[in-house]
Amino acid sequence: MTIKMQGHCTFDWLAAGVTAPAGFAAAGIPAGIKSHAARDKKDMALIAADRSVVAAGVFTTNRIKAAPVLLCRRRLKKSRRAQAVIINSGNANACTSKKGMADAESMAAITAGLLRINPALTLVCSTGTIGVPLPMEKIKRGIGLAVKNLARNGGSEAARAIMTTDTRPKQMAVRLRLGGKKVTIGAMAKGAGMISPKMATLLGFITTDAAVAPAALQEALSFAVEESFNRILVDGDTSTNDTILCLASGLAGNKTLTKQHPEWKIFKSALTELCRKLAYMIVEDGEGVTKVVRLVVKGAQSRAEAEKVARAIARSPLVKTSWFGADPNWGRVICAIGYSGAEIIPEKISIDYNGRVAVKSGKSAGLPPAVLQKIIAGKEFTIGVNLHQGDASYAMLTCDCSLDYVRINADYMT
Amino acid sequence: MTIKMQGHCTFDWLAAGVTAPAGFAAAGIPAGIKSHAARDKKDMALIAADRSVVAAGVFTTNRIKAAPVLLCRRRLKKSRRAQAVIINSGNANACTSKKGMADAESMAAITAGLLRINPALTLVCSTGTIGVPLPMEKIKRGIGLAVKNLARNGGSEAARAIMTTDTRPKQMAVRLRLGGKKVTIGAMAKGAGMISPKMATLLGFITTDAAVAPAALQEALSFAVEESFNRILVDGDTSTNDTILCLASGLAGNKTLTKQHPEWKIFKSALTELCRKLAYMIVEDGEGVTKVVRLVVKGAQSRAEAEKVARAIARSPLVKTSWFGADPNWGRVICAIGYSGAEIIPEKISIDYNGRVAVKSGKSAGLPPAVLQKIIAGKEFTIGVNLHQGDASYAMLTCDCSLDYVRINADYMT
Repeated sequence: MTIKMQGHCTFDWLAAGVTAPAGFAAAGIPAGIKSHAARDKKDMALIAADRSVVAAGVFTTNRIKAAPVLLCRRRLKKSRRAQAVIINSGNANACTSKKGMADAESMAAITAGLLRINPALTLVCSTGTIGVPLPMEKIKRGIGLAVKNLARNGGSEAARAIMTTDTRPKQMAVRLRLGGKKVTIGAMAKGAGMISPKMATLLGFITTDAAVAPAALQEALSFAVEESFNRILVDGDTSTNDTILCLASGLAGNKTLTKQHPEWKIFKSALTELCRKLAYMIVEDGEGVTKVVRLVVKGAQSRAEAEKVARAIARSPLVKTSWFGADPNWGRVICAIGYSGAEIIPEKISIDYNGRVAVKSGKSAGLPPAVLQKIIAGKEFTIGVNLHQGDASYAMLTCDCSLDYVRINADYMT
Repeated sequence: MTIKMQGHCTFDWLAAGVTAPAGFAAAGIPAGIKSHAARDKKDMALIAADRSVVAAGVFTTNRIKAAPVLLCRRRLKKSRRAQAVIINSGNANACTSKKGMADAESMAAITAGLLRINPALTLVCSTGTIGVPLPMEKIKRGIGLAVKNLARNGGSEAARAIMTTDTRPKQMAVRLRLGGKKVTIGAMAKGAGMISPKMATLLGFITTDAAVAPAALQEALSFAVEESFNRILVDGDTSTNDTILCLASGLAGNKTLTKQHPEWKIFKSALTELCRKLAYMIVEDGEGVTKVVRLVVKGAQSRAEAEKVARAIARSPLVKTSWFGADPNWGRVICAIGYSGAEIIPEKISIDYNGRVAVKSGKSAGLPPAVLQKIIAGKEFTIGVNLHQGDASYAMLTCDCSLDYVRINADYMT
């Protein structure tokens, strides 16, 4: 798929992940951490760069941060460089006290030792159950196996190994030209539940062979995350482990990108589009999700007000279950708008479904319920809200809440 | 059941409702508003006082308020008196524009005409689907039938008629002595879904034969609601129609209660206890609820901080579904504490279940999962959170989120 951007640049999308850019290898292996799962279920991933590369990260805003989040944040703050990321699923290493931090540091040290790199350049991510100490013997053996399995085409295996309740791996890569050089950005992510990222999100890993200045890479990543992963909501819970890391090897040979570079915006928009695609995949594969809903709130006094309205709708269990039931009940949507905390005038609100106006001036526009029901019965639809209060807007992606969401979460740990 | 209060006063609890106090009659009849339900399903209720009585009300904080809410608020603000309340279930008369307000006024006028009372003393409440105009012909016939069926013992029928997805009627009365006079307070309420009252809630109707000064009655009602209905959460949605009304006939013959009256606190605590019992019933009969969970957050810097923590836990779909599955997963509880927005130090948090400490200093206290699971498998349990940050606390009632919650709400309107 080729998308034309800004008239002078094309983005080519590839079904590939973190090993698509030059300079990276990856692996995904079973370490036995998910003890309740099948024995060969992959639960450890490794991304390794050929040399020390520029790195950036965005982390959870949850006040309770898992040990690996604290470790990554500290290391990136210090050097803005990294060479390897070791990741496990099945255990979050969160609320595990000093032992948790020691375990995260061990994971980095063991990985660095086997790769013969500087431990300070090794980052660590964990996802899974909170409050249970890591099984360090299994982790240690797992790291050994991951290092042995490192491969230039290992991205897909890594994407599989970071899954928890995800039903499918999520990866994507984009190729573009910058200053005549071919640049690739690859990414993988996991999501499924506990998805209400704000300022950061879930686990996502992005690699690129572009040469990018450290501060510029951080700025681009923060922007891309705000426009993508921070605009999705599955269930309203913000995790203790949300992390997005981006590593840039510079092997594409382009002139190092900074915010002043004439093609800076092109790189940034490619990165943002890539994050948006991954974010979409996360919602689509959210726990028990049967439909993806795009919310577009317009006419607000400020972006923050528009966001309040969008998030109230996206979080409402009544709205989400009515979507699951294909129930043409816009009353629950307008009720959520009412308690969102945003400045509204009820008599000015309009609501449309895929452009068909269901509510005008705060009351029914007479759209036949059958028309509405047909739209809501679809696998994907857009709800537009206009508050008619100003010019600000906010858009986000969300999903329904199904019987399977409850089934999955009533039975996750045990 | 007799409960001794404050050493010098006993409260006697009665299995009765709004017609238990002297001076009130009520009725509950089928008007055919719930067209998808059985023909004889009751959906209109009427409460009538023998004469004009003192009245108080507390209403939803949702910015979108149903027409009957606006009508009640306006009338009570003007006179603080009422003589009748006409109620329908099956249709919320919300987001119905000017016609909705005209319909609410018609309901009051028709009722007043048949009862031969002042229309300005007639209050109106509606609950049900949002955005659909009231079927006024059915409503008119229903009011006629309700007036015909008014009875001194009609409280139970009225309690049945205000139900929507409630599985059972909710009523209770309390008897106490004030200045040597026997005083009764009776109440009924409906709940089930869209339950996250704040400053007001759902539909609740309280009658008393106590003589109470208007301002004092409003103060007592606001206090009682804050301590009871405002401390329950089923799904986190705040309705457009939440209303609690209280009518005081004065027929008990006690000296009119004011805030200066020596027994004022006794009346207020009886009213509060009664509201607490009704609030408990609403959670217990919440949509799909299989267990009631009491949350007690202590050690916060302020009551508002403690409340943030309690509400984050109570709202979390991941926490609620784990309770449904009897999953000993305290990680989801501490994760919700982390994103609640409250000031916390992760390493200071402790969490107990029915007094058994599961988390100490922010990490597992080593309580065997089987012990925890046994507690969570029960029909009712208490989770205590201590932030060890200060002296403030907040307690509230909530419930699990089950498969039936999704089933009920995927299929409510259609």
